[in-house]
Amino acid sequence: MTFQEYFPVWDKLNPNQQQRLLGSLITRRVKKGDVIHNGSMHCTGLLLVQSGQLRAYILSDEGREITIYRLFDRDMCLFSASCIMRSIQFDITIAAEKDTALWVIPAEVYQGIMEESAPVANYTNELMASRFSDVMWLIEQVMWKSLDKRVASFLLDEAAIEGTDALKITHETIANHLGTHREVVTRMLRYFQNEGMVKLSRGMVAILDADRLDALQKEKA
Amino acid sequence: MTFQEYFPVWDKLNPNQQQRLLGSLITRRVKKGDVIHNGSMHCTGLLLVQSGQLRAYILSDEGREITIYRLFDRDMCLFSASCIMRSIQFDITIAAEKDTALWVIPAEVYQGIMEESAPVANYTNELMASRFSDVMWLIEQVMWKSLDKRVASFLLDEAAIEGTDALKITHETIANHLGTHREVVTRMLRYFQNEGMVKLSRGMVAILDADRLDALQKEKA
Repeated sequence: MTFQEYFPVWDKLNPNQQQRLLGSLITRRVKKGDVIHNGSMHCTGLLLVQSGQLRAYILSDEGREITIYRLFDRDMCLFSASCIMRSIQFDITIAAEKDTALWVIPAEVYQGIMEESAPVANYTNELMASRFSDVMWLIEQVMWKSLDKRVASFLLDEAAIEGTDALKITHETIANHLGTHREVVTRMLRYFQNEGMVKLSRGMVAILDADRLDALQKEKA
Repeated sequence: MTFQEYFPVWDKLNPNQQQRLLGSLITRRVKKGDVIHNGSMHCTGLLLVQSGQLRAYILSDEGREITIYRLFDRDMCLFSASCIMRSIQFDITIAAEKDTALWVIPAEVYQGIMEESAPVANYTNELMASRFSDVMWLIEQVMWKSLDKRVASFLLDEAAIEGTDALKITHETIANHLGTHREVVTRMLRYFQNEGMVKLSRGMVAILDADRLDALQKEKA
C-alpha cells in the first residue's frame, strides 16, 4: 500500500501540494514499547499508521498514566504535531503497543498545505472532532462509571482488539490505561475471578464469561 | 458592535460568503438560567456571544452535571452545531449563566462556507483545539487533583470572573460545576470555613484568604 491510498484527501490536493507532501514524508518502523512522541519533544509531526497499534496517554506529575485514545491501521495522529495550532495547549505521550510501521508528515509541511486547502483543513477538523469524541467518552467514564464497569469494558475491548479471550496483559498495564493504581486493579480482577468471570495467571487475564462482563459494564450505577 | 467586528475571519470571506452569513444570522437574547441547547435538540447552530456568559456541561443518566467549558464575550460555540461534522459523537447542554445577547449562525450556512473556505475551516480548527485544551485540562483535574484543590480553584476562578470575593453561589451549583454531590461540597466548604479561608452564609461564599486557597490549589498531591 502507498501513502496515497492511506491519506483520505489525497485526490483533493493539487499536484504541487501532492509533491510537497510526498517529498517530505518520513517512513518509520518502531518496536512495541517505543515512545514516539512526548510533550517535551518539540513537534514530532503528524503520524499516519500503516500497520500496528499506538497509544496516546497523559501523565500526572507523579507518573500515573491514563489512555486518551489508541491508533490503529490508517489512523492519523494530530497531537504529535501540536505546533500546527496555537490553541493546542496540552501534551500527550504516544507509544507503540505493537511493532508499528508509520509515516511521519513534518508539521510545517502539513500546516502549509492545511492553510491553503479547505479540504485538508476540513479533514483535520473531522480528525480532531473524532478525538474530541474519544475524550468526551473518557470524561463520562471517569466521572460517572465505577471502576468495576471500566475494568469490564476494558477487558472486553482488549479481547475485541486482540481477537482472543486470553489476554497477555499485566495488572500494571491495565492500571495505566485506566488512570488508577495496580493494587486497585488486582483487587478488582480477583473479585472477577471469584465470581467466575475471569481466570488469572502470571501476565495473563483469561475471560471466562464475556456475557457477565458485558452485563456488568452496561449496568446502571 | 456589529457581527463583522465579532467574527474573527470576516475579512477573509468573499462578498458572497459575507452576504450568506449576514443574511442568515439570528440575534437572540436569553435570560440567566435559560437552556439554549441540549443534546436532544437537532442542531441549534453556532453561537457567538455578544455579551453575557454561557456554560457548556454534560449530564449523567442520574442527572449529575459537570462543566466542560464556559463562554464569555466574543466566544463562539461549535458543539451546539454538532451536525456540521459527522465525527462529533457527543452531546452537551448549554445554558445561560447570565443574561446573554448572542448571534446564532445556522449550521448549514456555516458548514457550506467552511467547506469552501480554508480560512474559515482553519479558524474552526483553532476553535475546536481551544475547547479540546479545556477538556484535557478537565481530565487532568478530575484524574489527578483531589476535590479540595478543585473547589479552591473553582472559588478563585469565580472571584476573578465576577470581580468580587463575595460570591453569590449555592453549594448545589458548585457541585454541578465540578461533577460531584452537594453534600460533598458542603463538607469541603465547612472545612475551609473552619480553617478561616471562607465565610459561609445563605446562598453566599465569601473568600477571606485567597492566598491560602491559592496555595492549596497549587499544592502537590
